[in-house]
Amino acid sequence: VANRQNIAVIGLGSMGFGIARNVLGQGHETFGIDINPDAVARFQTEGGAVGDIATIAADLDAVAVVVLNAAQTESVLFGETGIVPRMRAGAVVVVCATVAPETARVLAARCEPYGVHYLDAPVSGGAVRAADGSLSVMAAGTPQAFDAAEHLLAAMSETVFALGDTPGTGSAMKAVNQLLAGVHLAAMTEALTFGMTQGVTPETFARVIPKCAGTSWMLEDRVPHIVEGDYTPRSAIDIWPKDLGIVLNIAKSASFSAPITAAALQQFLAASGMGMGQEDDAALAKVYARNAGLNLPGKT
Amino acid sequence: VANRQNIAVIGLGSMGFGIARNVLGQGHETFGIDINPDAVARFQTEGGAVGDIATIAADLDAVAVVVLNAAQTESVLFGETGIVPRMRAGAVVVVCATVAPETARVLAARCEPYGVHYLDAPVSGGAVRAADGSLSVMAAGTPQAFDAAEHLLAAMSETVFALGDTPGTGSAMKAVNQLLAGVHLAAMTEALTFGMTQGVTPETFARVIPKCAGTSWMLEDRVPHIVEGDYTPRSAIDIWPKDLGIVLNIAKSASFSAPITAAALQQFLAASGMGMGQEDDAALAKVYARNAGLNLPGKT
Repeated sequence: VANRQNIAVIGLGSMGFGIARNVLGQGHETFGIDINPDAVARFQTEGGAVGDIATIAADLDAVAVVVLNAAQTESVLFGETGIVPRMRAGAVVVVCATVAPETARVLAARCEPYGVHYLDAPVSGGAVRAADGSLSVMAAGTPQAFDAAEHLLAAMSETVFALGDTPGTGSAMKAVNQLLAGVHLAAMTEALTFGMTQGVTPETFARVIPKCAGTSWMLEDRVPHIVEGDYTPRSAIDIWPKDLGIVLNIAKSASFSAPITAAALQQFLAASGMGMGQEDDAALAKVYARNAGLNLPGKT
Repeated sequence: VANRQNIAVIGLGSMGFGIARNVLGQGHETFGIDINPDAVARFQTEGGAVGDIATIAADLDAVAVVVLNAAQTESVLFGETGIVPRMRAGAVVVVCATVAPETARVLAARCEPYGVHYLDAPVSGGAVRAADGSLSVMAAGTPQAFDAAEHLLAAMSETVFALGDTPGTGSAMKAVNQLLAGVHLAAMTEALTFGMTQGVTPETFARVIPKCAGTSWMLEDRVPHIVEGDYTPRSAIDIWPKDLGIVLNIAKSASFSAPITAAALQQFLAASGMGMGQEDDAALAKVYARNAGLNLPGKT
C-alpha cells in the first residue's frame, strides 16, 4: 500500500470502532486502544495491530482520539500513560471529542513543546456514518496539522470542513451544530405532542411537516422513532445534557444569553430525571406526553 | 373554459393578490375584494371582475378568505356585509387565515344553517409561492367542501394535504408548522450569533451548517439575509408574536406546556419592542447581537 501509515484510534466505542475499521480498510497499520480489553480484542480479530501505547507511540504517524469528553481527552493525551510526550515530532493528534473551544486551544498549546501537531476535529454524522467512513469533520489547525492528518481524515470522512488554522474553531462549529440539533430535536417533540392535543396524529405530522417550512434534518431523522414507538438508542437522551451543557458553559463564559438552548436543555434534563437517559433521544416526547396526559404510539 | 366558476378572493394582500391572479389565470370569473380600493382597482386592471359583495354573493361558487386573523375572518364571513348569509347553498368558503382550531370549528358550524360549506385551509409557502400558484394547503372539511373547492384549490396550490373531515385540523397543522418554523428561525439566530462569539463567522456558518445535522428549512431560507445584511421584509418580525401567540393560546387552553415556543416568542417580542416589527424576520439576530455586543454584517 502506498502511503501506508502507522495510525492509532484511541476509544473504540460506536464512533471509534467505525473509524478504526475504515483506517484498517485503507491498508494502514492500525492500532485500536480502549480501556475495555474486549473492544481491543474484537478489533484485533478484524485485523487490528497489537501493541500498548508505551511501545507503539514513537512509531505513530497519526492518532485519532475518539473519547467522550474533555477530561478523557486530557487523560489520553497527557495523563499517566499519555501519548503526546511519547510521540515523534511531526506526528499529529486528531481530537474528535466534543470539547470547549478554549479546551482545544489549551491542549494544542500543550502539544507544541513536543513538536506534535494538534487538529481540532469534532465529527458529525453518528455511528452509522462512522461505520461507512462518511463522517463530516469540522477541523481547525495549522496547515502542517492538516497535512499530517491527511490519510486518517481520508479514511474516516466524506467531508472535511477546513475552518482555519486556529484550534478551537472546529469545536466552536461543533457546539453551534449541537445547539441547533438539540433545539430542533426538542422542538420536534414539543410540536408533535402539541399537535396531538389538537387532533393531529403523529403519523399525519410525519407525513405533512417534512414537506413544509417547519421541517429540519433532526425532525426527519427522529420522527419515525416516535411514530413506530421504537426507543432503541441510536443516540441517547444523555448525550444532550452533556452537549448542551458544553454550549451553555461556553455561552456563559462569553456572557452570551441563549434562552432557547436553555429551555431545550431543561426538557432533556427532565427526560434524564424520569429515568430515560439511556433511551433513544426521541424519547424526549414522553416528557411532553406525560405532562399533557397523551398516549404516544407503541408501548411507552 | 370548461368548469368556469364564479370565485371571489377576499383580502388582496401579498398572499391574496397572488391567489386571485392565479384563479383569474385559470379562466374563472374572479372578483377581488379588499377594504383598500387601490388593491381592488389594481386587480381590475389585470382583468378582475367588478362587483360588490351584496351584488355578487348569490352567484359565487367559491370564496377564498385571505385576511390576517380570526377577527377579520369572522367579520368577512358574518359581519355587517358578511358574505355567508348571502351565498347559495352548496357554495364553499375556503378560509386561509391562521386561526385557532376551535375558531375554525365555530365558524364552520355557523355556516351550516346556510348550507354553505366551510373548508379550513391555512396555507404555507409565502408570497412567492402564492404568486406562482404553488402554495401548500393544510385542509380539513367535509368531502362536499373539498369537492366545492376543487377548482379554487387547483388554481392556488401545488399540494393539498387532506387532513380529514373535521374543520380545525387544518388550522391545528398550521399551528404545528408555525411553532416549528418560529422556533427554528429563532434558534438559527441564536446559534449564528453564539458562533460569532467563538470566531465562527456568519459566512462560515452559512457554508457549513446546511450540510450538517443542525440544519432546517428556515435556517437555509433566512441565513442569507443575515450574511448579506439585508432586512428588506419578505416576512416581517411581527408575524411571529401573532402566530406564536396563537400557538400558545391553543396550548394554554389544552393545558399543554410549551417552554421552547415560549422562549422563542420572548425573543420576537424583544425584536418588536426594539422597533424592528416591520423588518425582515431574520432581523431577530440583532436582538442577540445587541445583547452580546456583536457586529452583524452590513449596516445594522
